[in-house]
Formats: sequence, C-alpha cells, structure tokens
Amino acid sequence: MTMIETLRQQLGDAAVIAPGPAMAGYLEERRGLFAQRPAQAVVRPADSRGVATCVRIAAEYGAGIVPQGGNTGLCGGAATTHPDGLILSLERLDRIRAVDADNFTLTAEAGCTLSALQTAAADVGRLFPLSYAAENDCQIGGNLATNAGGMNVLRYGNARDLALGLEVVLADGRIWDGLRTLRKDNSGYDLKDLFIGAEGTLGIITAASLKLFPAVRERATAIVGLDSATAAVSLFARLRAASGDTITSCELMGRGPLGLALEHAADCHEPLPERFPWYLLVELTSSAPAAGLDTRLEQALQADDAGAGDYRIAPDAATAADFWRLRNSIPGAQKGAGASIKNDVSVPVADIPAFIEAASAAVTEACPGVRPCAFGHIGDGNIHFNLTRPVATSDEAFLAQWGALTRRVHDIAMQYRGSFAAEHGVGQLKPGEVARLKSPVEQDLMRQLKAAFDPADRLNPGKVVPPSG
Amino acid sequence: MTMIETLRQQLGDAAVIAPGPAMAGYLEERRGLFAQRPAQAVVRPADSRGVATCVRIAAEYGAGIVPQGGNTGLCGGAATTHPDGLILSLERLDRIRAVDADNFTLTAEAGCTLSALQTAAADVGRLFPLSYAAENDCQIGGNLATNAGGMNVLRYGNARDLALGLEVVLADGRIWDGLRTLRKDNSGYDLKDLFIGAEGTLGIITAASLKLFPAVRERATAIVGLDSATAAVSLFARLRAASGDTITSCELMGRGPLGLALEHAADCHEPLPERFPWYLLVELTSSAPAAGLDTRLEQALQADDAGAGDYRIAPDAATAADFWRLRNSIPGAQKGAGASIKNDVSVPVADIPAFIEAASAAVTEACPGVRPCAFGHIGDGNIHFNLTRPVATSDEAFLAQWGALTRRVHDIAMQYRGSFAAEHGVGQLKPGEVARLKSPVEQDLMRQLKAAFDPADRLNPGKVVPPSG
Repeated sequence: MTMIETLRQQLGDAAVIAPGPAMAGYLEERRGLFAQRPAQAVVRPADSRGVATCVRIAAEYGAGIVPQGGNTGLCGGAATTHPDGLILSLERLDRIRAVDADNFTLTAEAGCTLSALQTAAADVGRLFPLSYAAENDCQIGGNLATNAGGMNVLRYGNARDLALGLEVVLADGRIWDGLRTLRKDNSGYDLKDLFIGAEGTLGIITAASLKLFPAVRERATAIVGLDSATAAVSLFARLRAASGDTITSCELMGRGPLGLALEHAADCHEPLPERFPWYLLVELTSSAPAAGLDTRLEQALQADDAGAGDYRIAPDAATAADFWRLRNSIPGAQKGAGASIKNDVSVPVADIPAFIEAASAAVTEACPGVRPCAFGHIGDGNIHFNLTRPVATSDEAFLAQWGALTRRVHDIAMQYRGSFAAEHGVGQLKPGEVARLKSPVEQDLMRQLKAAFDPADRLNPGKVVPPSG
Repeated sequence: MTMIETLRQQLGDAAVIAPGPAMAGYLEERRGLFAQRPAQAVVRPADSRGVATCVRIAAEYGAGIVPQGGNTGLCGGAATTHPDGLILSLERLDRIRAVDADNFTLTAEAGCTLSALQTAAADVGRLFPLSYAAENDCQIGGNLATNAGGMNVLRYGNARDLALGLEVVLADGRIWDGLRTLRKDNSGYDLKDLFIGAEGTLGIITAASLKLFPAVRERATAIVGLDSATAAVSLFARLRAASGDTITSCELMGRGPLGLALEHAADCHEPLPERFPWYLLVELTSSAPAAGLDTRLEQALQADDAGAGDYRIAPDAATAADFWRLRNSIPGAQKGAGASIKNDVSVPVADIPAFIEAASAAVTEACPGVRPCAFGHIGDGNIHFNLTRPVATSDEAFLAQWGALTRRVHDIAMQYRGSFAAEHGVGQLKPGEVARLKSPVEQDLMRQLKAAFDPADRLNPGKVVPPSG
C-alpha cells in the first residue's frame, strides 16, 4: 500500500488531501519568499490520536512532516522544504476542552484560532491576552510552536509565558500528556518549554492549557512627543513605576515612519500641534473599576523630569483608536514609499537608542540613501528596524541587497547581546544565521536536543536547527 | 596525581576542602532526612572557569559532582549520595555583574544570596520579587536550580519566570553563555528553562540575568474570615479582578493551623471578633504612589456577594505585621502540637476545596485522629497540607507512617492533575514518586534529556531522574 492509501485507510478519506487544487491553500506562503514545493499529501486528523497515527505512518514510509497551523508565519516554518513530505494540518483539532474562570485557565486544542480563545475567555469575564494582527487566522498551536509575541507582551509576556501545560505528539508517535493547569510544579524537567518555540521540530503540540487574566475594565491611552529615543526609554521606565505596572503597550515611532503613515494611510492625522523626532504610544489598562488610569497617566507625563516634549491623553475611545491607527498604519504605509526590507531584532531596552543609531549608520554605509524606519515595542526591546529603499533606487535593486543588509543589522544587534529572531522565529529563513551568529556550544546543544527528540529528522526537517558544521 | 592534588594544583589550595571538620557545614542537611555521606572533597572555585575546570577534572577521575548553593533545600538535592563524589560549592561566585534600572534587569553570579540581590535591586529603586524564609542564606543559583517559589509567586511567578538568561557549565566542562536580558528572543530552542528546576542534573548554573520590577510604594493588607474553602477560592478570583491584579499574596489558613499559632506562638492574637473555619490573608501592592489600595480592597470585600464573613484591613504597618505573624508562626507552632508530616503538593486553584476534603478523608482513614493542617498559597494552588500527629500517638509511631501517608496525599493530588512536588523539588527524596506517578512517556523524556546532556551521569547523580524501568 502507498503511504496515501495507508493514511486514508487509518484516518478516513476526509483527512487526506492529495496534490491538486484542494492543496493550494496549504502551500501558500505569505511573503512569497520560499519556493512552493508540493507535499505528497496534506493530512488533517480530527484529534490527537489521529496526529499520532499520522506521525507513525510517516515514520514507517520515511516521510518528513511539516506541521501547519493557520499558516500565517513569516519565516517559512510551515512551508515545505522536502518535496516528499507531508503537511500535517492541525485545523480540525479545534475544540476548547475546558474553561475555568476561578482557576483563570483554559484548555484548547492546537487548531483553535487565537480569536476563538479570546472569545471563550471573554465569555466568562476573563482575558486571554495574546493578540496580534493575524489573530483571526492564526492558531494557538502555531502561536505556541513559534512563541508568538504581539501587542501585549510588555504586560503579559509571550505565548510561552501564557502556557501552563501541553499535549504533544512525539516523533515516535507517542502522546505526552502534559496538560496541567498548575502554578507551581517542580516534579521533574520542564518539558513544555522545550516544545514551545521549537516550531514543531521536537514534537507536535496538539493541545495546551493556558493562563487567563481578569477582563480589562478601564483603559487610558496617550501619545507623547519626545526629542530623543533615549528620552523615550527613560519615560517608559518611569511610566512602568508610576502606573503601578499597568502599562500594557508602549510603542515607539520615529518621525520617519509616522510621516509615512500620515502621507500614505487613510484617516491618519498629525497627533500633536508640534512635530517631534520620536513618539510613544502608551496604553495603561486595569481590571479594576474606576482605577483612575487617566489621572495616573497625566501625573506621570506632566512631571517636570518626565522628559515628554508634549503629550495628549485620548479623551475617548475614538481618539484612542486614532492614535492606534497611526501605529498600525505604518507597515502598510511603508509600501507606499517603495520596497522595504524587514528586520526582526531585539536588544536590551536600555540599548535601543544606541542600537538604532549604530544600525542606521551601518545600513547607510552599505546602501547610501536608505531610509531606516524604526518603530515597535519599546518595552520588549523589539524594534521593527525596517529599511525603505532609497528614493532613487528601484525596488528590485534594493531587494537584491536583502541578505547583505539584514546581516549588517543582525551583526549590530548581536553587539548589544540582542536577537536576530526576536518575534517571528527561525523557520527556514534563518538557520543560516543561527549557524553564523550563535556560539558553537549553543548550536551543539540545539543539535543534541534535536537528535534526542527526533533522531530520524522527521519533524519539520530543515527548520530551526542548522546542519552540523 | 590524585584528584584532590589535581584540583589543588589547578584551582589553588583555598578552593579545596578535604574531609575533616571544615567540611562539616557542607554535609549538613536541614531536615536530617538523609544519611550524611562525606564527600571526597568540597571544591569552591572562584569563578565560572574554575567551575568548568572542576567539572573536567571530576570527569577525568570518574567522580560525581553535587552542586551546592546555600544548602537550604528540603529534598536532599544538595546532599551527597555517592561517598566518592565531590561537592561543588558555588559560594565564591558572589559578584553582581550588572544592574540596569532602565532595562529592569540584574545579572549576578550563582553564589549571590537572595537577599543580596534584593538589596542591589532596591538600591536602584527596583524590586527583585523572589522572597522566602531562607532568603539570607539561599543563593540565586540554587533558587534557579530548584525553581524556587515563595511568597510572591502569585504576582511575579516562580524563579523560572524571573530569569531572562543563564550561564551554565555543561557536563563536558564547556561554558554555555546564555546571559541575555531580552524580553523577546525566538532564535532557537529554549535552553535556559531546561537547566532551571533541573537541580544541577543537566548543567551547573554559574550566573543569571534576572528581571526586576518597579519598587513597591503602597501596600494594603487584610485578614478575612470565611465559612468555607470554596468561598475563599471565589473571593480570591474576585479580588484578582477588583484589585486590578495588584494582589501579591493570598494565604489560606484553616482554623486548625491558625489555632495552633494562637496557642503555641508568641504575639499571636485572635484576628477577628468571631471565629471562622477559614481565613484569607490578602495583600495588595503597587508601585504607583497613592494607588488607593485600601479603598479598592474595602470595596471588594464589602460587596454583598463577596462571601467574606468578616474582615479587617490593617490600618497601619504594625497591624499588617500582626496578620503576617499569624501566618508565619504556623510552621513553628505545629511543632508544639507534636510531630508533623509535610506535604508539598499543588492542585488547580479551583480544586483546592475538593482536594482538602478528599485528602483529609484519605489520611484520616489511614491514621485515625490525625490532624490535617491546611494552609498556604491559595493563588498558586499550593497548599501546605501538613499532618500533625494524633493527640494520643507518639511522635515516633506517627513519623513511621511518613511514606505511606505522603503517598496517599500524592495520590489524591494526582487525581486532580496536581503535583507531588510543587515547590521544593525532587532531590533525592522523590525520584521514587517520579517513577510511581509520572507517565512512562514523561519519564522517558526525562531520561533522554539526562542522557543527552550528561551521558556519563556525573552531574548530581541519583537526583530527580528515576532509574530506568
């Protein structure tokens, strides 16, 4: 029997999609950076046992497996590299198994969309805080496999910080039931954190137990103009303390990217009477009624030594939405100014100003006229250091420099003990940078883990771990 | 040359203590549960490279290594099991390498005491929130190796949640430099969390980069009387929301243990006019000035559906200290009532009432007249379910039942998907329970990790991981 016949026999016809038009959506890749290689089949099991069965059959026939959630990743982690592999879609594992308001937890299968979890939490007066642009499409299994970040990391952490337990199908087809909802458990090695962020290369996450938080009942939003990125870092630290650590978002925007939004995006307006080289979009939230966040924010910003050039606190939700539109319009607005090269880097928060300066100098040296566009999550040290092409350069000529320019930016990030893959992971885009930038010791540890958990290299082969020296 | 001669030659005479009176302190073990086996030597390197040298020499001579911090652990993790092993004391690695107030981070060597880190953070207006009774003696390396918990877990998490990066000496004597202070980094596998909580069996932590928080500027403390543990769980959930998640401690105390404190401990007074079967000690904190915590607490407690039988908010710090004295006197007061058997278990928060009921019934069946003493961190699901001997039973006869009674309690905890080692780890006390209670799959994963990271079984042999089959 062929592998596809065996899969059909054991999982049912509906669970197996052969090459053809029905497979197209599973082969798409958002950025179009990777060649689309057809899979032997897309397998869509209905539950964790079906996933285990699929893994065992793939092992039997010597096929690699690419686990796929919402397929919204940007580094090709869910795209095939091996023409003979299977895509294992988790989309049918879409049940919320339990919601416990008093325990502040929720247990859900890997294929639940992020927005479905947000809704399930809200239905019992709780918040599931993971949130980002793709939340209607991405799935919690993929969120955990890539340790997704997003808008609320500053307050609630990355996906890793929200996970209390996992269910994982291992490379040998066994299921590890690590679904716990405990706040304290020191009864053995921390297995779950190995699978989180491993992009399906060590095991396939099929369900997770997650932390919930009290629902937000009050919100205060401000936009602040500043003379320097250094002033922004100091103000952020000050606001963390003065707000009672209720700061949920703190987005840094250079005048450059803000100007692009004003020029190219709809419904974007100059936020302050005067122009500033830097802006912070600050949001405080609280689950307490009448928390007085506006007053706290006002007091913190008007202090003489706060360093705020000017500021405006949103008097209503519509104005807050205006502020957020400025921030959220930047990525799209960049397109209006020509091709751009994205960098997904992080550095220690206090080093952001020095990093921006050094990285801007480095890319300008390599590509005179390039327009660095720095914006992003200051509290996470995660700046989208995007590069818009020089005015007089063609898109094609500029994009040909992608590899060289990102390597320059990564080099500078590493000088500050930063990361060359802050938020979007490694996938098939950056194993080369892992090999180039991580210490031999760390690469060896990664290879040892891969060899221990997936000795035959069947789970998402070619992703994350660089080939040995 | 003998191993001790080689160690002396390479690390200096001051770094090596041979068997004799000077070794005694390193062989002590707080609970006296484990036989004191002398080590071949205690080695006290001055820095990470010295630790690496010691590990290489031990490998050369085939000796096992027991890493030791402040030696305050309760499960024998830092006590020898092999008479031919070395104790590797981290006490001389006591430098704080960096404190960065704007980045809210601190980097320190493994031998720094917890209280030294608290002080270093306070000196720059920051809080290092890990806190527990042994804080003047325990060391951060041991805190991380055991994933220590303590009084503030509810708000700030366990030691694991406070670590951003580690430096670790591996079994082959290489040093992994994973000292990062990043809030987002998805550039490879999560190595640090493997070493945290592994009790030195996968590598020896020599330094750590840790999260800091804004210093506390306001505090509100209350004691609440309740009719049931179920009411306590509901009130806890309610307070989390109503306080804007500023709740830092929430300690549950049964009337039994509270009564023991009133009877046997100094300066303990009935906290409320009426007696209740259950009490909660609640503390809110905030880094915001004038956060109005007393008002928030009052409003939440006086609501009709709050379920508080009665409550008192401390009007001043002295009264708050009185409330805390009640809680902190319980462990000592138990001694006044005769021998007691400790259990270190956790369950999902919402299951605490059912767990207490089921576990009390189980131990009473096994040992009629036993006095269950339930108190502890309700928000962490971590109840110290201690058992005081029956009035008419001798200490010796009661303590002879330690193994049987703790196994009963562990069994009940597992029925609620809880943990039999919530806070104090496994050490050499509980590998048997790991073998008895964890799934074969999970045990295999633990053994695979141990084999991958320490193939010759040199690092803290006999701890944490149960022998195969």
